[in-house]
Amino acid sequence: MRILVINPNTTASMTDKIGKAAEVAASSGTQIVAVNPKDGPPSIEGYFDEAFVVPGIIAEMAKAGAMDAYVIACFDDTGLDAARCAADAPVIGIGEAAFHIATLIAGKFSVVTTLARSVPAIEHNLSKYGLASRCAKVRASDVPVLDLELPGSDARRKISAEIARAITEDKAEAIVLGCAGMADLAHALSQEHGVPVLDGVACAVRLAETVSALGLRTSKVGGYAAPLAKRFAGLYAPWSPGGDKGADGTP
Amino acid sequence: MRILVINPNTTASMTDKIGKAAEVAASSGTQIVAVNPKDGPPSIEGYFDEAFVVPGIIAEMAKAGAMDAYVIACFDDTGLDAARCAADAPVIGIGEAAFHIATLIAGKFSVVTTLARSVPAIEHNLSKYGLASRCAKVRASDVPVLDLELPGSDARRKISAEIARAITEDKAEAIVLGCAGMADLAHALSQEHGVPVLDGVACAVRLAETVSALGLRTSKVGGYAAPLAKRFAGLYAPWSPGGDKGADGTP
Amino acid sequence: MRILVINPNTTASMTDKIGKAAEVAASSGTQIVAVNPKDGPPSIEGYFDEAFVVPGIIAEMAKAGAMDAYVIACFDDTGLDAARCAADAPVIGIGEAAFHIATLIAGKFSVVTTLARSVPAIEHNLSKYGLASRCAKVRASDVPVLDLELPGSDARRKISAEIARAITEDKAEAIVLGCAGMADLAHALSQEHGVPVLDGVACAVRLAETVSALGLRTSKVGGYAAPLAKRFAGLYAPWSPGGDKGADGTP
Amino acid sequence: MRILVINPNTTASMTDKIGKAAEVAASSGTQIVAVNPKDGPPSIEGYFDEAFVVPGIIAEMAKAGAMDAYVIACFDDTGLDAARCAADAPVIGIGEAAFHIATLIAGKFSVVTTLARSVPAIEHNLSKYGLASRCAKVRASDVPVLDLELPGSDARRKISAEIARAITEDKAEAIVLGCAGMADLAHALSQEHGVPVLDGVACAVRLAETVSALGLRTSKVGGYAAPLAKRFAGLYAPWSPGGDKGADGTP
Amino acid sequence: MRILVINPNTTASMTDKIGKAAEVAASSGTQIVAVNPKDGPPSIEGYFDEAFVVPGIIAEMAKAGAMDAYVIACFDDTGLDAARCAADAPVIGIGEAAFHIATLIAGKFSVVTTLARSVPAIEHNLSKYGLASRCAKVRASDVPVLDLELPGSDARRKISAEIARAITEDKAEAIVLGCAGMADLAHALSQEHGVPVLDGVACAVRLAETVSALGLRTSKVGGYAAPLAKRFAGLYAPWSPGGDKGADGTP
Amino acid sequence: MRILVINPNTTASMTDKIGKAAEVAASSGTQIVAVNPKDGPPSIEGYFDEAFVVPGIIAEMAKAGAMDAYVIACFDDTGLDAARCAADAPVIGIGEAAFHIATLIAGKFSVVTTLARSVPAIEHNLSKYGLASRCAKVRASDVPVLDLELPGSDARRKISAEIARAITEDKAEAIVLGCAGMADLAHALSQEHGVPVLDGVACAVRLAETVSALGLRTSKVGGYAAPLAKRFAGLYAPWSPGGDKGADGTP
Repeated sequence: MRILVINPNTTASMTDKIGKAAEVAASSGTQIVAVNPKDGPPSIEGYFDEAFVVPGIIAEMAKAGAMDAYVIACFDDTGLDAARCAADAPVIGIGEAAFHIATLIAGKFSVVTTLARSVPAIEHNLSKYGLASRCAKVRASDVPVLDLELPGSDARRKISAEIARAITEDKAEAIVLGCAGMADLAHALSQEHGVPVLDGVACAVRLAETVSALGLRTSKVGGYAAPLAKRFAGLYAPWSPGGDKGADGTP
Repeated sequence: MRILVINPNTTASMTDKIGKAAEVAASSGTQIVAVNPKDGPPSIEGYFDEAFVVPGIIAEMAKAGAMDAYVIACFDDTGLDAARCAADAPVIGIGEAAFHIATLIAGKFSVVTTLARSVPAIEHNLSKYGLASRCAKVRASDVPVLDLELPGSDARRKISAEIARAITEDKAEAIVLGCAGMADLAHALSQEHGVPVLDGVACAVRLAETVSALGLRTSKVGGYAAPLAKRFAGLYAPWSPGGDKGADGTP
Repeated sequence: MRILVINPNTTASMTDKIGKAAEVAASSGTQIVAVNPKDGPPSIEGYFDEAFVVPGIIAEMAKAGAMDAYVIACFDDTGLDAARCAADAPVIGIGEAAFHIATLIAGKFSVVTTLARSVPAIEHNLSKYGLASRCAKVRASDVPVLDLELPGSDARRKISAEIARAITEDKAEAIVLGCAGMADLAHALSQEHGVPVLDGVACAVRLAETVSALGLRTSKVGGYAAPLAKRFAGLYAPWSPGGDKGADGTP
Repeated sequence: MRILVINPNTTASMTDKIGKAAEVAASSGTQIVAVNPKDGPPSIEGYFDEAFVVPGIIAEMAKAGAMDAYVIACFDDTGLDAARCAADAPVIGIGEAAFHIATLIAGKFSVVTTLARSVPAIEHNLSKYGLASRCAKVRASDVPVLDLELPGSDARRKISAEIARAITEDKAEAIVLGCAGMADLAHALSQEHGVPVLDGVACAVRLAETVSALGLRTSKVGGYAAPLAKRFAGLYAPWSPGGDKGADGTP
Repeated sequence: MRILVINPNTTASMTDKIGKAAEVAASSGTQIVAVNPKDGPPSIEGYFDEAFVVPGIIAEMAKAGAMDAYVIACFDDTGLDAARCAADAPVIGIGEAAFHIATLIAGKFSVVTTLARSVPAIEHNLSKYGLASRCAKVRASDVPVLDLELPGSDARRKISAEIARAITEDKAEAIVLGCAGMADLAHALSQEHGVPVLDGVACAVRLAETVSALGLRTSKVGGYAAPLAKRFAGLYAPWSPGGDKGADGTP
Repeated sequence: MRILVINPNTTASMTDKIGKAAEVAASSGTQIVAVNPKDGPPSIEGYFDEAFVVPGIIAEMAKAGAMDAYVIACFDDTGLDAARCAADAPVIGIGEAAFHIATLIAGKFSVVTTLARSVPAIEHNLSKYGLASRCAKVRASDVPVLDLELPGSDARRKISAEIARAITEDKAEAIVLGCAGMADLAHALSQEHGVPVLDGVACAVRLAETVSALGLRTSKVGGYAAPLAKRFAGLYAPWSPGGDKGADGTP
């Protein structure tokens, strides 16, 4: 099985880390293709940055050719709905993946993410997915995304401290790490705190395999129907549904 | 007061219609500037199309120079959160505007929109805004957006029939028209059916005036904080927060 | 445009303050008529006091003659539903007005009101309006309503301290002041705390102008239908729907 | 035990019917005192009528002297919160009583009330009480309240037809009759339809006995705290908390 | 009237205490029959223990012969749904009973139960019953159930301390004691803290009398329909609906 | 990997069918062990039957020895919480599994189950899991469970007709089959109706593999903590936590 794992930001080191986490999580028979768009922000911290990643996600999907499933490796699940319209194969977001898996092993979980500005988008997703009642609290650790790439940073300490607060104050039974860049911390933090700590990348890769192996495809009745054929203008002409794409699906 | 009314799709005739509706609704002292992006889809019908309009909205805001308020004239309120991060002046979506006003004159309202594929996005917005409990039902009239621009189409008949069903079956006390392209139909449909029929463009323009006149600005604490300075890559370099913009804010 | 602003309690000094706040907020073309009933409590602090103000509100509406809109200037929105039945012109409560406007500029807001006994009524309104999910917390500042009229009181200090707690503990992005008597404090408190602080009187006046200017009227289908003609007995005979009113609409 | 059953409207024949239903439902040791205010509407059909009954309810409570519990016999539970502030002894509304009892014998219930204009108030109460999720639907039978007093009317037929629809369409497992004037119909309609049919008057009398017998009183911490002493003006001077009442508690 | 009060655990001393509390709460005309199963756990602390009590509850109901109502005296309301299928006479759980009564005398209540492991089951019940919005918080006092039977234990002190926190931190207006074994503490704790403190056993006995006296039976339409006749295998053959029961309804 | 798939009822033919469906769904490396208790009902149709299966589930788990994960193959997810307390390895219910997977490929789904009496239990689970907002409707096809084992029955026709109604009336984008006995119908019904049709057995097996492969275990903090050591009486002595089990973990 081939799964395209898309890191929606343009930071290659994070794409590498995500790709490695995906490969560790994947079944033996699964090939992980980890990519990131060439256009857009180096990290996604809030609604503004989110707005510039979806065309890149769609372009990477078009370039990649046939895939059995897609994973969007941004915890905000940016572009998830659009990607589901664009593909028949299942598309899984790492945020939703971690939320769903957490509910299978714990009554309530808390999310520990990066900056306060990212909390509302995560809260909106939880209520959109229907899982808000299962999340005790979405907490910011006050760690900028790219600090997770810096060896010297005290990111891990801050995240661990926030997990401790979630267990004590929220009575969280499990912790969801709220950023793809935290993928490498989950195991050690789980050992440290004695509760399950979930990384969305691993959860999403396995859920993508699962949905594909079950022979399920995204429903094309309703909100995820294939885009109507129309001619997009200017920058986006190559994305016009039903044609006009360049050789590689991008300008 | 100057209000920038952005039609996020690229269809100029719809921008004209929206601009006229905005001018009719605006106070005497208000100047309406109606624009649309040069890049993107000719109409927004579902999640895929939505994904290609936000950079254009931000570019139009940058190009327009100082404004007292902004209106996003797509009923899905596409890009609303990103636009609020980008600006200090208030930004109002026509969907949210119509929902809020409807709750001030009716206990429950129903929405009559275009295609079934647009219903889920509207339902998500209603629950995100907190107003889902005030909406009896979101109904599709099965009218493609651009049919609203065609003199000969039976769009009006289909919409009117759906309104009748909403009043009878949903016990709707008011109707919200679910597309900016329906702005010119509200008054006549209200006369015909004897309930308030709301057009989001007019509601949004007046709410934008209201928030601005009250001296209120979008809160910069939390989800709508100004974007962090970072360098966007490729196509989006001109949108990099804190610099790199071309003379007109676009490539 | 003429707007009747009704302070439902009998304290004239508060009516004056509310009238001034309304005039400051109103458009140039708008005439504010600020009144209070001659019958009822000097302040509204809890459910018991609320129960004695609605006939007075209806009487003031009847006495005032033709108006373009009505504002009920009690943060509990006391009598709002009854007033909507009594009038065709829109009726706006200052509580709902502030809640709706707050959601247009912030993801989450907290309310800072007077006494703990008033909190449940406000919480009920939030859930009735559908906006409970947008309110982080309703907080009491332990300030009796009439202390807001006393120069020497430490009301302002207590309110400011509660706002500080709302920002820190609730992550509130905006603050709604939960009493008409706080109308004069909003601007300074916003400066002091660096978040929007909303006064319901100003919000309601502008929303009343907006709904009226949009040519919208309260829906008469459903809960806000005009009262059925019937003969009220005793004290309330003058309020009998369809007749029996004295010259001035009151006993 | 003495229970004051207050019919908030001024129609004596309905008070008699309610009193009889209360006596049938009461325990042997319980004395029912059924009263109605001398001031107010002859029936309560919508928000406007509701607004004129609460002072009368409070006056009847004051006149009646010491009681072990109070029942408010209007299905809208009009004045319930104010009455709880006014008394230490428990106060039960017939609407809430029927809702709570229905949840003890059925998974879901539907309400069959009088006119469509009364539906929103009942829906608001259900969500305020927290029981909205247990109510399948609130249905109007299109029967004016006073038709229930007319031998010749087809009220019973209309109500029975609506019950049949509730069972078939809503999958209602029990029916709550949505008007005190329907108290005499419950038993026969239950026989006819083979599901429990609840009358709020009987439910409320028994719940009032129960709460009183358990030695419980309304909590005076929070929203139901005793009214603060203050001087009401004009018509309502006799209701001033902490004094000014006439011999019989009314003007 | 005869009410069977079933303590679902096998600890006779708790059955005695519950029986006494039930007799104190019951009307003079009511006969309380307090029993416990001979099979199962000595206390119910979490989901695992819960799973072994329902056959015993059904067996006790079968053995007891004709009853006017049944009370399940475990705060988790274990087996309530199954018992309602098994009987026509009403079945009341002590948890639901206390929750419903609390909402009649207070705006919001908090629950103080035994161990943290029992909190999720109580939270699920609250949301299933629809009353989650009326409960401020479910709190664990960290008291094992059987410590409530030990004279020397500091159970009472821990419970009282948790009640104090609920009043201060949750703004709880009433307290529900979350274990049948706390039945004897309610009165003194209410005196101590100045808010109503509810014991579910007393509430359930009175509600059972109420529902029965109203002539109401569990609805047999929908989820509480009588079990379909079928042959259970092995251990449970005696419970086979429609036959196979031993003389006393148990193996 | 070894997964124990427990059919909680005693009908061996259904256990065979479920086992086959599980093997088809499982990864190549996975060994499915399909069992059913020797004690209990031949089918689970409503709350009463549910009450007699949990000890059997726990006994099968004890007998089976070390497993990597457990699947409870009853759509009501009967005994799921107790089983999670009993095991460290993940336990997945087929109902929850199908609900979660459905939300990854569709905006809204409907459930088509067997008898009306089973609908409330499924609705409760949906709200407990947090997914009620994602389910358009739970529908009964009026097919008794064991008819699914009868070649001649018209079960398939009834189920297909109900699916058609769900697509038309509920706007369901996917269908969840609400009984383990329908496992063999999913593929053909999906072909027939052009929407994804999900079988819980397959979904649960893959989710069980996923959670186990991710190295996740049920959280032992909170509701799923291991049972406290105590001596169960009578029939259940062998299930006493911390000892007393017979050689095979059952009486």
